[in-house]
Parts: sequence; structure tokens; C-alpha cells
Amino acid sequence: MDREIRVGLCGCGVIGEGVVTALLQHADVIGERVGGPLKLAAVADKDPARLDIVRAQDPNISLIDDAFEIVARDDVDIVVELIGGVEVADRLVRAALDAKKHVVTANKALLAERGGALFALAEANGCDLYFEAAVAGAIPVIRVIRESLAADRILSVRGIINGTSNYILSSMANDGAAFADALKAAQQAGFAEADPTLDITGGDAGHKLAILAALAFGARVLPGEIPTEGIESVDPRDIQYARNFGYAIRPLAVAQRLQTGALDLRVHPALVPEGDPLAHVDGALNAVAIQGAMVGPSFLSGLGAGAGPTATSVAGDIIDIAKNSLAGAPVRRWNLSSDGDQKIQAIADLSSRYYLRFSVRDESGVLAALSGKLGDSGISIEKMVQDVDAGDAGTASIAMLTHNTHEGGVRDSLHAIDNTDLTTAPTHLIRIVE
Amino acid sequence: MDREIRVGLCGCGVIGEGVVTALLQHADVIGERVGGPLKLAAVADKDPARLDIVRAQDPNISLIDDAFEIVARDDVDIVVELIGGVEVADRLVRAALDAKKHVVTANKALLAERGGALFALAEANGCDLYFEAAVAGAIPVIRVIRESLAADRILSVRGIINGTSNYILSSMANDGAAFADALKAAQQAGFAEADPTLDITGGDAGHKLAILAALAFGARVLPGEIPTEGIESVDPRDIQYARNFGYAIRPLAVAQRLQTGALDLRVHPALVPEGDPLAHVDGALNAVAIQGAMVGPSFLSGLGAGAGPTATSVAGDIIDIAKNSLAGAPVRRWNLSSDGDQKIQAIADLSSRYYLRFSVRDESGVLAALSGKLGDSGISIEKMVQDVDAGDAGTASIAMLTHNTHEGGVRDSLHAIDNTDLTTAPTHLIRIVE
Repeated sequence: MDREIRVGLCGCGVIGEGVVTALLQHADVIGERVGGPLKLAAVADKDPARLDIVRAQDPNISLIDDAFEIVARDDVDIVVELIGGVEVADRLVRAALDAKKHVVTANKALLAERGGALFALAEANGCDLYFEAAVAGAIPVIRVIRESLAADRILSVRGIINGTSNYILSSMANDGAAFADALKAAQQAGFAEADPTLDITGGDAGHKLAILAALAFGARVLPGEIPTEGIESVDPRDIQYARNFGYAIRPLAVAQRLQTGALDLRVHPALVPEGDPLAHVDGALNAVAIQGAMVGPSFLSGLGAGAGPTATSVAGDIIDIAKNSLAGAPVRRWNLSSDGDQKIQAIADLSSRYYLRFSVRDESGVLAALSGKLGDSGISIEKMVQDVDAGDAGTASIAMLTHNTHEGGVRDSLHAIDNTDLTTAPTHLIRIVE
Repeated sequence: MDREIRVGLCGCGVIGEGVVTALLQHADVIGERVGGPLKLAAVADKDPARLDIVRAQDPNISLIDDAFEIVARDDVDIVVELIGGVEVADRLVRAALDAKKHVVTANKALLAERGGALFALAEANGCDLYFEAAVAGAIPVIRVIRESLAADRILSVRGIINGTSNYILSSMANDGAAFADALKAAQQAGFAEADPTLDITGGDAGHKLAILAALAFGARVLPGEIPTEGIESVDPRDIQYARNFGYAIRPLAVAQRLQTGALDLRVHPALVPEGDPLAHVDGALNAVAIQGAMVGPSFLSGLGAGAGPTATSVAGDIIDIAKNSLAGAPVRRWNLSSDGDQKIQAIADLSSRYYLRFSVRDESGVLAALSGKLGDSGISIEKMVQDVDAGDAGTASIAMLTHNTHEGGVRDSLHAIDNTDLTTAPTHLIRIVE
């Protein structure tokens, strides 16, 4: 008779509940794919009400209030960490690995901050540590980079990997709402947390980008080292101007290996050309575009959050580990050697095209003076449009796209211009990614 | 010391050459991912010039003119079948499996026609039979359906899985060319074969759809059983009208399990709404949109053909099998039990919205008569536009979108209308997929 693989689930919020449902409802198919029975042995949560929901589905599952008890149980082979946060989750995952249990986690903050040490610990203990759900929810980007592109060299990864930010920018694009109003609406619709800081400032995307960069380029970087900019400063006017220029504004995360050898890693809102599939990823969807040396462009999109999508990714990981475990296959190695440079390019050294929006006095000669100053700094303008500001008499807006140039130079030039009386408010800059 | 896994490659055309390059150039990374050395032991091709190219890259590879010698060699663990066609490839793959060798193939026709028997033979011999490159080239759709969505129930699969057809329809959309001219340009650009029949008639997409339907729904269908329609009858005017209605015309393959239990499988050009990511898949790109019960919408796109993309998928399969083989893991089972209905819904029973384009006499009363006849058949019109035909004096075009209705009824009604003197040419019908 086949040996049984037993799962212990730590943290039974909406995602945990989704995992329970997936494992119980599709037990037959899963057993067939694993090659033997997969049993949900124990579930831990501090909230008895959540455990009641599990009990109602299957009275034979052990229900526990302390997640650390799961790790200590003999009848658990795979520990699923869904409690979130860094410190407690770190201790829990370490305890599981020390007890020679495989681990599945959806915890991007944990992996971004402590991944290196945890993967080393997993390997030392001969255990698997899987995390498909940590990046872009339902999108199997970890599996695709790790397995499908195993024989290729990845040139770049660009992604919309924070659904909250994309939902907010999409609402602003669709109904012209200001950022604050779009945020409020997103909170009411359940697409933003009560405290949305980590999402809208790009912090969450930075966590995920650190993980992607490690996989794609062997980068060993902490999220704090990644140049990061949130979406708070995007104005509905920017979205409108960008659209007229043929672009959409999306919350992007970018990772590429530059020809200098340095890593170009950054998180910021960006103008994306209409012809780019990323421009059409709307609402809470996530997407990842990968450029491979052999494979060319590859594009994946799907729901980045939510119980169903995330639980499906977690369950896919559990099935993989269970199948390998039953087969006696060795664990997957994540800490691939990296002979590449670990230096992240400073954002001032970035070479890019830029979108600029100036608020100026509505007087003759202003545009000529502005163009002159940009020209003096070696910044060449590709497209330009000037509008009278509807709201503010006596002022006008000038929006433009620059040709390729260096960010440091643009910033210096804008700083100088904003110190003259040409502009009536600080100039907005948004990078173009294409 | 690790045991070596040895690969024998049968057929060294452009894809085979890509596989050779991938295996040789990335040998270090591949070895690390496999967990031991992966060696390209032998390559077979009837054309000595092709073997010379391999020899130039690595003089230690055995070069053979007869592919059947590869399967007989003791120093080959994995046979890669890239000779194409059905009969010889079938014999070759059977011989390899009988000799207890794992097989990787990119041959969609072979799998669509003989897949059932070949997978059974592979399983009986304890061998793997992988085929990621057979469907949608670089897009890891087989892996995603089989592994990432292992815990989900798939509701529908819709795809652009013939790059030639998509290239032609895209050209027609971009420059207004007629089908014949766009085909000629595609042939000159290398995006269509000298004999493009299998691509433009939907036959190639039917092969791939049969494979996808087997994976997603346990369907046991032959390509010949799938209602299939090519892109030859699409007119530039259809593309223009569709665009004005807010749709793009794409060469689609559709598979879904209907609520009646029957399978809805079909290949045809279709109007796709602008908001659907499939509408933005341009040129030779392929794409697959999967709807899962838990995971929601999932979308993948990439190059569907070409040496690099296809070779990367083949190499990914080789790496997977080599890793599992070194680990002593059991082979993957493809022949999942299917308790579902195997009946394919007749196209006359399809319930859909339709795009119709009538060529009519440019006289008063014609539109009223036409609408009346459609109304009598219970077909209700959602949108309509009438244009005078520039080319043909005295005639006009009427394009419309219908509300949901049954195809049999629409066909009957159009047949009756085309037998009156209201229309001056047969009416064009294109299904809407949304």
C-alpha cells in the first residue's frame, strides 16, 4: 500500500481556508497526481471560529491553537506556513526545517528578508521549501522561471506584482478619480488593506522583486536595497496625458542584468506603451513579462491575490513536494551559484526615456525658456503638449516625453527649473518602460 | 560520482539545432538543475550537412544518419523525436519506449492522432513521454495545466495556438491587405510554409486543441472530430467592422465543459472583445487563456514557433526527465481517468453571439426586410451599421452583432435570406467568443 503524505497547515485565514477546501474537495484527483494519498492531518489557528469551519468540513483533522505544535507532530510531513509576518514565521519555518519537514509558504516578506538563510537551512536538512504563492498569486512565475526556462538565459523580468496598486491606477484611469479617492474606493471594495502603506509605496512589490531577481539573476539583495517609488504621486492628469501619448501608467517592478554587469532593479509607476501586453493588465490582475535569450518574450497574467488563486498555488506546491517525497526524489536546490555582479545600479545612473509634467505660468515665452533649459542639460524632447489648466487660472500644464537620457541629469535639470519662477509647482517625472 | 544522463536527438533541423545549442551552451546550469551531468550522446539526421554543424560544436557527439539507430543505443537514456510526421515518428517513439527509453517530442500531429496508445505504452514500460513544445511553443501551457493547476478544476481553455494564422490576420488588420496578399507576405517573411494548408485551415490548431482538451478535460478526441474552420474566408472589411464594434478577429481554439456535460471544442476565427487580453496578441505570438474554478483567469503568451522558443521547451522537458530519472522518481502519468462525457457538442447546437455581414442591394426597404426575416427567426440584433460599398456601385454592406442565439437557427435563417434577392453575395458569419 502507498505511504500517505500528511500536511499540517499553520494559519487558517482566507487563504488557509482555500487550501483546506482545495485539498478536501479535490482529494481524488490530487491523490492520482501525487501517486498516493495526501492527507490534511492538522490545522492550527489561534481563532477557534476558524477551526470550527475546518471541523465542519472534516471532523477527523486535528485542530490546534498553537502553530508550533504542528511542527512538532510526527504525523506531519509538509508544513504549510500561512501565518504571515517575518519574526514568528521565521521561527516556525526554521523549526519545521530543523524537524526535517518540507515547507510551503506564501510569505514574500519572510523570503525577501530571510530567504538566503532559510533556503540554506532547507538544503542542509534535505527538505523542500516552496513558495509559488509568494509572488503574483495564481501566476506560476516561480515554476516557469525555475523549470520551463531552465535551459534559457533570462534577460529581463518586468511585472505588475502588486494588485492593490494596479487596481487603484486602473480606477484612476477609468473614472479620472484622484489617488486618495481611488484608494478609498479600493479599500471599500476590499482591494486595499485598512493600512495600505506596504502596497502603495511599492514595498510589497519590492519584496516580490527581490525573490524574482534571486531566481532569474542569482541576485542576493534585500528589498531595502531596491530603488522603490510608490504610486501616491500619480495624478489623474498624468494618466490622461500618458494615454494621449499612447501609454498606460502601471505599477511596475523591473529586474534586468545590464551590459555593464550590474543589476537594474526598481519598483515604480511607469508609462508602458499601448502595444505592450502590460498596458492591458487591468484592475487587481498581476502580470509578469519575461524576456529570454532563446525563448524571446513570455507573458503571464492572472489574479495576484485572493483566497482561490493563492490557495491553488499553495496546493500546487504541496502536490509537487508530496509527489517528489513519495518518489524519494531529492529536494529542489534554490541557492544556485551566482557568479554575476551583485551591485545594483544607482537610480541616478539609469538610462531611460521620461514623462515630465510641468505646471507653469500661462505666459508667452515660458515654453521657449523651459525647452531651452532642458536643451542646455542635453535633454531632448520627443513629444510635447501644452494645456491651459482648467482649475487654476493663469497657469498651464506642459507634458512631454523625452528621448533616452540619464536620470541624474534630468533630476538636476528639473531641480534647477523648479527653483526658477517658470514653474508654479514641482515638476512630475515618471519613467517610461518599454 | 553522479550517473550521467545521456540524450539522443532524432532530427536536427532548426529546432534540433536549437536544442543542441541549448544543451551545449548551458551545460553547467543544466547540470546543476538536473543534479548531475546531462550529456548529448548522439544526433541523427539524414542530411550530413546538418550533422556537420553539430560536429563543429562538439566533435565528441556520435553522428548517425538513421534515427532508429539512436533508439537502439545503450548510451542513450532519453530520445528526443524531432523528425515530425505521424507514421515514421510513431514507429520511432514506439521503438524508443519498447527499449525503455524516455521520450521528448514536439510532434503535435503524432500525439493528437496516436497519443492515447503512446501514453499507455510509455506507462507500461515505465517511461516518460513529454511534449511541452507540441503546443504553443515557448508557452509552458502543458506544465501549467498539469502542475500549477493540479488542485483546481479547469472551466475553459481558449487559445491562439497557430502563429501563422495569427500573423496573417494581424497583417490584414494592420495594413488592410486581403487574405491572399497577407498569406503571400507571411510566406515571404518566413511565417507561413510554402504549403500553408494545415495552418490556415485550422488543422494544426485542431491537433493542439485535442492535446489541450485531453489534459484539461480528459477528452479522448481525434482532431477530425473537432468542428474546425480556417481563416481563409475572413475579409479585411470584417476586421474593420469588428474593430468599429470594439472587437479584434483572432484565430481561436476553444475547449470547455458545458453544463450539459458535453464538450464544446472548436477551432475558428472569432471576434474577441478589445478588453480581452487575447485581442492584443499580435503577429506570430501564441496565447492561452485558462479559466479555473478557484484560480480565476490565467493568461499565458509567447512565441509559438521558431527554433529558440521550441528548443527551450524541449530542453526544459529533457531537464525535467533527467532530474526525475537521476532521482529515481516514477514517471508522470498522463492518462488520467476521465469520468466525463466524451460527446462533442455539434456546432449547430452552439449558443453564441454572432457577427454577420450582408452584401445587399443599396435600395430602401432592404434593411427592414432583412431585420424582419432575422426577427422572424428569433434572432435579435444588438448593433448594426450600414455602409455603401465603395467598390461595387448599387450594393451596400450591413454588418451586425447578434444577441445570444443558436447557431443552427442562424445558419438556417442566413440560408433562407441568401436565397432571396435581398443579398448580392453569401452572408459572412463569424462567431464571437468572450
